[in-house]
Amino acid sequence: MDAIFQALSDGTRRQMLRDLATGDRTVSELAAPHPMSLAAASKHIRVLENAGLIRREIEGRTHRCHLEAAPLAAAHSELSFYEQFWTSSLNELDRLLREDAAQEKQAAISSRPAAHKDD
Amino acid sequence: MDAIFQALSDGTRRQMLRDLATGDRTVSELAAPHPMSLAAASKHIRVLENAGLIRREIEGRTHRCHLEAAPLAAAHSELSFYEQFWTSSLNELDRLLREDAAQEKQAAISSRPAAHKDD
Repeated sequence: MDAIFQALSDGTRRQMLRDLATGDRTVSELAAPHPMSLAAASKHIRVLENAGLIRREIEGRTHRCHLEAAPLAAAHSELSFYEQFWTSSLNELDRLLREDAAQEKQAAISSRPAAHKDD
Repeated sequence: MDAIFQALSDGTRRQMLRDLATGDRTVSELAAPHPMSLAAASKHIRVLENAGLIRREIEGRTHRCHLEAAPLAAAHSELSFYEQFWTSSLNELDRLLREDAAQEKQAAISSRPAAHKDD
């Protein structure tokens, strides 16, 4: 699990996974969109491979990379546990915003006709 | 997003978040279950704090830690994108296992009464 989250902790690697989601890619194709050397890109690919998120098939001189999404299920499930907490935070935020809006509306009504503005 | 996944890439830190899910904890309480110095545990807490996953309230000499789950929603959503892929892998695995089971059953029937065992 450490290796999976570690692999995901970099924007270049997350983009590579996104690219693989649309189909297999050679190492050069995966590296191409990123402003870095092929060696640096290969290092990122190796991190993804070691985390089990990429399977590499070697056909002659071509290394073809394939997305292995299954290990992400465990990471997803770890995060799903916290869904109850961020849902309740969002509900609380929603409640506060509605309260604010209602108070502002009330203030606008009671201050009529002499309009004044609160901070 | 990098900082969130980085924070999650360590078992000690994931356990600390789980502990906070059951209620607020002081730094010492968060550190207690882990076989490491208070300084090492504090470093982990700081990583969680920098990723926005912990809010620290200082009451006199006590630092009370509170889970901030909201940033995990973004990480969860990033992983949800891949759900279609691991679901199809699991369906495929399920299909292969069923096929295997059916073939074994067929083999067992056709080899009767002379029982033999495949690897």
